[in-house]
Amino acid sequence: MATQPSKELETFENPYPERDYHIHMEVPEFTCLCPKTGQPDFATLILDYIPDQKCVELKSLKMYMWSYRNEGAFHEAVTNHILNDLVAATHPRFMRLTAKFYVRGGIFTNVVAEHRKIGWQPAPHVELTAFEANSNTRG
Amino acid sequence: MATQPSKELETFENPYPERDYHIHMEVPEFTCLCPKTGQPDFATLILDYIPDQKCVELKSLKMYMWSYRNEGAFHEAVTNHILNDLVAATHPRFMRLTAKFYVRGGIFTNVVAEHRKIGWQPAPHVELTAFEANSNTRG
Amino acid sequence: MATQPSKELETFENPYPERDYHIHMEVPEFTCLCPKTGQPDFATLILDYIPDQKCVELKSLKMYMWSYRNEGAFHEAVTNHILNDLVAATHPRFMRLTAKFYVRGGIFTNVVAEHRKIGWQPAPHVELTAFEANSNTRG
Amino acid sequence: MATQPSKELETFENPYPERDYHIHMEVPEFTCLCPKTGQPDFATLILDYIPDQKCVELKSLKMYMWSYRNEGAFHEAVTNHILNDLVAATHPRFMRLTAKFYVRGGIFTNVVAEHRKIGWQPAPHVELTAFEANSNTRG
Amino acid sequence: MATQPSKELETFENPYPERDYHIHMEVPEFTCLCPKTGQPDFATLILDYIPDQKCVELKSLKMYMWSYRNEGAFHEAVTNHILNDLVAATHPRFMRLTAKFYVRGGIFTNVVAEHRKIGWQPAPHVELTAFEANSNTRG
Amino acid sequence: MATQPSKELETFENPYPERDYHIHMEVPEFTCLCPKTGQPDFATLILDYIPDQKCVELKSLKMYMWSYRNEGAFHEAVTNHILNDLVAATHPRFMRLTAKFYVRGGIFTNVVAEHRKIGWQPAPHVELTAFEANSNTRG
Amino acid sequence: MATQPSKELETFENPYPERDYHIHMEVPEFTCLCPKTGQPDFATLILDYIPDQKCVELKSLKMYMWSYRNEGAFHEAVTNHILNDLVAATHPRFMRLTAKFYVRGGIFTNVVAEHRKIGWQPAPHVELTAFEANSNTRG
Amino acid sequence: MATQPSKELETFENPYPERDYHIHMEVPEFTCLCPKTGQPDFATLILDYIPDQKCVELKSLKMYMWSYRNEGAFHEAVTNHILNDLVAATHPRFMRLTAKFYVRGGIFTNVVAEHRKIGWQPAPHVELTAFEANSNTRG
Amino acid sequence: MATQPSKELETFENPYPERDYHIHMEVPEFTCLCPKTGQPDFATLILDYIPDQKCVELKSLKMYMWSYRNEGAFHEAVTNHILNDLVAATHPRFMRLTAKFYVRGGIFTNVVAEHRKIGWQPAPHVELTAFEANSNTRG
Amino acid sequence: MATQPSKELETFENPYPERDYHIHMEVPEFTCLCPKTGQPDFATLILDYIPDQKCVELKSLKMYMWSYRNEGAFHEAVTNHILNDLVAATHPRFMRLTAKFYVRGGIFTNVVAEHRKIGWQPAPHVELTAFEANSNTRG
Ligand SMILES: [Ca+2]
Ligand SMILES: [Ca+2]
Ligand SMILES: [Ca+2]
Ligand SMILES: [Ca+2]
Ligand SMILES: [Ca+2]
Ligand SMILES: [Ca+2]
Ligand SMILES: [Ca+2]
Ligand SMILES: [Ca+2]
Ligand SMILES: [Ca+2]
Ligand SMILES: [Ca+2]
Ligand SMILES: [Ca+2]
Ligand SMILES: [Ca+2]
Ligand SMILES: [Ca+2]
Ligand SMILES: [Ca+2]
Ligand SMILES: [Ca+2]
Ligand SMILES: [Ca+2]
Repeated sequence: MATQPSKELETFENPYPERDYHIHMEVPEFTCLCPKTGQPDFATLILDYIPDQKCVELKSLKMYMWSYRNEGAFHEAVTNHILNDLVAATHPRFMRLTAKFYVRGGIFTNVVAEHRKIGWQPAPHVELTAFEANSNTRG
Repeated sequence: MATQPSKELETFENPYPERDYHIHMEVPEFTCLCPKTGQPDFATLILDYIPDQKCVELKSLKMYMWSYRNEGAFHEAVTNHILNDLVAATHPRFMRLTAKFYVRGGIFTNVVAEHRKIGWQPAPHVELTAFEANSNTRG
Repeated sequence: MATQPSKELETFENPYPERDYHIHMEVPEFTCLCPKTGQPDFATLILDYIPDQKCVELKSLKMYMWSYRNEGAFHEAVTNHILNDLVAATHPRFMRLTAKFYVRGGIFTNVVAEHRKIGWQPAPHVELTAFEANSNTRG
Repeated sequence: MATQPSKELETFENPYPERDYHIHMEVPEFTCLCPKTGQPDFATLILDYIPDQKCVELKSLKMYMWSYRNEGAFHEAVTNHILNDLVAATHPRFMRLTAKFYVRGGIFTNVVAEHRKIGWQPAPHVELTAFEANSNTRG
Repeated sequence: MATQPSKELETFENPYPERDYHIHMEVPEFTCLCPKTGQPDFATLILDYIPDQKCVELKSLKMYMWSYRNEGAFHEAVTNHILNDLVAATHPRFMRLTAKFYVRGGIFTNVVAEHRKIGWQPAPHVELTAFEANSNTRG
Repeated sequence: MATQPSKELETFENPYPERDYHIHMEVPEFTCLCPKTGQPDFATLILDYIPDQKCVELKSLKMYMWSYRNEGAFHEAVTNHILNDLVAATHPRFMRLTAKFYVRGGIFTNVVAEHRKIGWQPAPHVELTAFEANSNTRG
Repeated sequence: MATQPSKELETFENPYPERDYHIHMEVPEFTCLCPKTGQPDFATLILDYIPDQKCVELKSLKMYMWSYRNEGAFHEAVTNHILNDLVAATHPRFMRLTAKFYVRGGIFTNVVAEHRKIGWQPAPHVELTAFEANSNTRG
Repeated sequence: MATQPSKELETFENPYPERDYHIHMEVPEFTCLCPKTGQPDFATLILDYIPDQKCVELKSLKMYMWSYRNEGAFHEAVTNHILNDLVAATHPRFMRLTAKFYVRGGIFTNVVAEHRKIGWQPAPHVELTAFEANSNTRG
Repeated sequence: MATQPSKELETFENPYPERDYHIHMEVPEFTCLCPKTGQPDFATLILDYIPDQKCVELKSLKMYMWSYRNEGAFHEAVTNHILNDLVAATHPRFMRLTAKFYVRGGIFTNVVAEHRKIGWQPAPHVELTAFEANSNTRG
Repeated sequence: MATQPSKELETFENPYPERDYHIHMEVPEFTCLCPKTGQPDFATLILDYIPDQKCVELKSLKMYMWSYRNEGAFHEAVTNHILNDLVAATHPRFMRLTAKFYVRGGIFTNVVAEHRKIGWQPAPHVELTAFEANSNTRG
């Protein structure tokens, strides 16, 4: 099966558009090139969104990320740029993109950017006690 | 003892309906099939709810989860569908279902969906210092 | 020294009733019996409260917990029942009881219940950066 | 160099009183005596405060903590008492003292008390994504 | 390539000034001298900011931090001073500096200071379920 | 289904007696009584063994552990006693029982006891690099 | 692409048979049925081996694991059986299979079984200091 | 009940002297004074031993540790001295004392000392796969 | 400064060849291509070696790793191949290369390969108690 | 009190030379300069040794470490050099120095070097079950 990097982001119909719900995706394999030195940069991207009519298709998201492999990109710019592309493809109610770049010059840099659909408001948050996984095991 | 997978969700009477309280359940053994490839998918489901007149019975919840073992189901759809079934069975004041699906194509996907009873409002949250278990041990 | 399990909860005078302050206690040794099968159940109880005129005495709390050792009790009911007993003994401004039951049928269940004194309001919360213990060590 | 335990808390001038900022200190070596049995008690104290005109001097804080080594003190009372002493010495805009006492009778007890200067209000909190240290390393 | 410590903080144009987004940087290699004893002090600095027209350049930030290596500086003062320098260089919409100093006299000290541009307001926060990295792995 | 505590340990035929292999079981719900004070004691038991002709049946192991619920037992004695019972029931090639008792008097106590079949020798250990679960995730 | 569960284990030629080296694979998605109750069982399998002339092909290993989805299998037996199948397919110099089964009846069970080629001896182990990933970060 | 610090270490008869078994005790509340400055020092002591005819009594061990509260003691000397006292009281087959002292001058110091009964040999160690507690949970 | 990927591994003279000592390096940014699908693969490489006359130069190691960015490589083969290149460049007394590849098909794969200089023997290992970093902090 | 960096390492008489025992020290504040670029380097040093007639004095060890603050030093060379200085000062039976350098060029480097007194042999190691601190807490 021939697969290719691609800037095309495929989507599918949101199966439950009547409800605001949260999709969380982690893409641990992002790499691009430093525009100054040409050396590889690495990041983990975390995508959190509340879909409207469309959801991001998983495999196409992977191909999209691959498409940066040979492109030069600054940390702050590429995070915002990817967010814009994802917004253009899915028009979500809410979307947050978190990029955690691998250490450079002894300094760690993460970037977080958000988009909100005009007029969209989140339902008031219901705050419950949060439990770690298996917090009631013992031993 | 013959047990069977079942779409039937059994309930019992909420013993303290006069109080809004929080029930948290972790179901680490959910598995279904990918509708595209037929291959098994795996998830951990986390159910948080505030019961009204009915609570979900533990054993029947397990049988219900088992019932997905041979069914095809997309991540976003199945999370919302299970939430709907749980709401239909218990009519809770509040319910949140979190599905953490095992990695596919190198990407992690979690889905979180909520239901609120019309007119129900949570009591204002009292924020206390949170302590990890045994945070005052030393050694 | 003869000690006995006891449903009696002893209290002492709150030494600083002029201030809303938070007492957090962890009771990792709760055990009772399953009313259906008679088998032992185990839980860790976490008590968070803001005292009014009375505080729970530590040793009597331990004896109180011991008193459930040979009693049948459902998860949801016993959590609310213990909260009621603690409220009846201390009439706190605020009390939250968290019960983390050991896994049954492959499913984890935690229950959280709260009581608030009528008319009591918490001071607006001051949110500071939270640090893990020893977060400035290195090595 | 002769050092002595001391109830005297020394202070220095807040170098940036024009700004509300947060000082966090951890004192892992608090010990006093149980007033009932005379046996040693141990705690870790955590001090969080927003200074006004004065800051607590580190070395004097250590000597102050030492001064409890041979005194009897109940958990709830000593936490509030130390908070009062620190407030009397520094008149902070806000101060929170957290005492995490070592396990007694199989039960863990922590106490949290706060003081706020009359009329002082915190600036509305800006909530940012929180990252664990080095969250962008990999390996 | 000759590099030098420098108090000069270089900046670059914010590539997406039309959006409030969050930049998080960790500088684990800060060291200065104790003004009293001349001995070295060590800290990890954490910078969180929402840029306006300018972003801090990574390499110059490193040189700036290096410039403290032979200077005497108190914990509370140096944290506020560095924040002021960063604000003067970038005029951010929001900036928070967290300094975690290595243990002295058995006591841990962290300092957190913030700056907000006059008239700037954060967008209301959208609270989503937070997941630890790879929270859906198993094994 | 009526279940009962029982000192009877049931076994089943080892399905692969031709091979030395390792069975590890964790029993986090052991409780007995302190012979001096009558108060409950709690422990997690960890059983590691290399079966010979017989394996311990899981459900009967649970009933066996339950049988200590109302018996007085000292830490050191009960660990050795349980090991003896397990050895008598299964005649293993090797067995190690680890008992981790909950804190008493501010002191933690664990006990580890082993049995080896006369003449049995373990195959020379092949030491491989040990990896934590999912040590190759990133993010 | 039609994929199917299969008991066939595919292999490929070991590219470096002249060297004893270690391959570690984690299969977190094993599920079979309990032969007694018919209910699903879940495990994480960990395979460590030193290949001789053949290596296990990754995709076929996944299909092989899938083939147990509708089969009844006891913990101790299935671990040894899978090891036998893997040995039959690859004739490795050394192989260790670790199966970590999800909790049943409140008790955790893991099984570890090994195979060694007759006459094969591991090179004497060179013991170096082991470091956790990123153990030299700070912050 | 009047308790007193005491240099007397009480013992009881080893209930299973026919077997070499391992007792592990953690004493997280050791404190003494620095002989140079008079300031308090803090440590966690870890005792591992294989008893011969006698075991250390838990409560007396606690009183013994208390007896150092007002004594000056150097790290290296006090660790060896306590080991000698424990050996004199119990004549164990093997004993290891680990003292982890709280940080001083920015440097951490731990001390480990051992005693072996003349002529005693440990049984050859059987090395099994070690599992973390609840390593087979998921979620 | 123009940097380039390069298969050339630079070395420098071992400054202490009279002593067997251990160098540990972590390279978290390895990426190559899957020879079958052309898709990117990712790994963390861990290099442990005892140098003889030459040490690997850090920057050249980075360029060497970069050189795989556009090459197809199987997991087992590339690990052994890189080890061979490192051995050819440095002729170490001992070298171990550990490659931790990111998850594929839901399965994790790590590969560990070693080289030993003919006739070289490690000094008998001195086994000391191992402490986690800052294991004597408390709080 | 005027303190100064110093290459002089002070020692004191080993209080228990009749016994081989282990002293572990962590020095998290080592910094020197890169000989090529002049930029600061940072490391955590870990010292493990079995003293003969002399022990390293803590404060002088700190001053010694300080003395590298303005010196150029390569990772491999400085680790061996410090070990040599410590050996020259204390003539230990055994000494191991572990240096964990902060990340450079995206790569982590640790160095471990040892010295053994000629003719010295460690006592055969007694291998006991190792427990994490407070491994028997629950909650
Ligand atoms: Ca856990
Ligand atoms: Ca635990
Ligand atoms: Ca946590
Ligand atoms: Ca803990
Ligand atoms: Ca934490
Ligand atoms: Ca720590
Ligand atoms: Ca952390
Ligand atoms: Ca975390
Ligand atoms: Ca995890
Ligand atoms: Ca682990
Ligand atoms: Ca990880
Ligand atoms: Ca780890
Ligand atoms: Ca880390
Ligand atoms: Ca562990
Ligand atoms: Ca560790
Ligand atoms: Ca630990």
